[in-house]
Amino acid sequence: MKRKHWNVKASRYVHRDAWIAVRADDCETPEGVAVAPYYVLEYPDWVFVSVFDDDDRVMLVHLYRHGMKEMSLELPGGVKDEADASPVDTAQRELLEETGYTAATVVHVGSMTPNSATHTNLVHSCVALGAKRVGPPAQDDTEDIEVEFVEVEDLLEMIDDGRFKQALHIAAFYRALRYRKMLKMMQGA
Amino acid sequence: MKRKHWNVKASRYVHRDAWIAVRADDCETPEGVAVAPYYVLEYPDWVFVSVFDDDDRVMLVHLYRHGMKEMSLELPGGVKDEADASPVDTAQRELLEETGYTAATVVHVGSMTPNSATHTNLVHSCVALGAKRVGPPAQDDTEDIEVEFVEVEDLLEMIDDGRFKQALHIAAFYRALRYRKMLKMMQGA
Repeated sequence: MKRKHWNVKASRYVHRDAWIAVRADDCETPEGVAVAPYYVLEYPDWVFVSVFDDDDRVMLVHLYRHGMKEMSLELPGGVKDEADASPVDTAQRELLEETGYTAATVVHVGSMTPNSATHTNLVHSCVALGAKRVGPPAQDDTEDIEVEFVEVEDLLEMIDDGRFKQALHIAAFYRALRYRKMLKMMQGA
Repeated sequence: MKRKHWNVKASRYVHRDAWIAVRADDCETPEGVAVAPYYVLEYPDWVFVSVFDDDDRVMLVHLYRHGMKEMSLELPGGVKDEADASPVDTAQRELLEETGYTAATVVHVGSMTPNSATHTNLVHSCVALGAKRVGPPAQDDTEDIEVEFVEVEDLLEMIDDGRFKQALHIAAFYRALRYRKMLKMMQGA
């Protein structure tokens, strides 16, 4: 396969604020064709966690999402802070803050790109096992997150029929599921 | 579960061009907390196609993606034009343009959101069966797309180990795989 990169002739930010950074690159293909401007969205990494309790049910969170202007069923998770040494740190912090749960084991399953065409960041899929509620969540005053646990087969059906429809979370959950199956196989369960 | 929506007090575009529209909404939660500005990215829908040939291998495309500044392995697909009556139309058009292939059957498996927090659009997963090359692709002069077919198990491994890492395409493929399995079960294959 060919390795090819566009040359960036000039680059500037067209909008930058607390939650967004839109960069405009004036690019040129290896064949000399101009692609200008090409817009890139700069974000920090995100971490989504497939959280299992001791009955092997998986945690869903329910919250308002203003992009789609609707309530959304998702995995818990959030933005990887610079202070987080690893995606596992983010997973543990967000799980406790958003839901008031901790987990006996948290593992980083793998990293993906949310959209290689437009985004600069990674999405990390983590698995948390043995989740237990230790106290009330510490949500900020714009958050209003409800937690529920469902069977894995139920979540797969919710993905099939579109009730659980956030694609980044679907990808993170399927990666977690492969990990969980591999783990069970190795443990002879 | 609660149904809650933010009120939009004011709305404006901070940047709008051929490939991007960044909207800033001044919002207020039901509890009266201001979230202003909240940035929303407006896009048309996208369609990704899991294309199978008669040997049940799945098509991958390999192309440069400037968000990540690297070559990316993906499913074929693209933007749903206003002229496309359905995601199936987009799937057939993009498949032919990008790769020079047509398929005997194309089915719309389901719709997802690329990111309910920030995006307004949907991602559609389609399955194409019985793909055959009918001629050269009609790529535009900024595209340089290579096509290959791999076994389903190989793609699953490429997802597991991070070689195939675009999360929207991973979600689209897993949804397609569930559909394909259901279809085979119904056909007694």
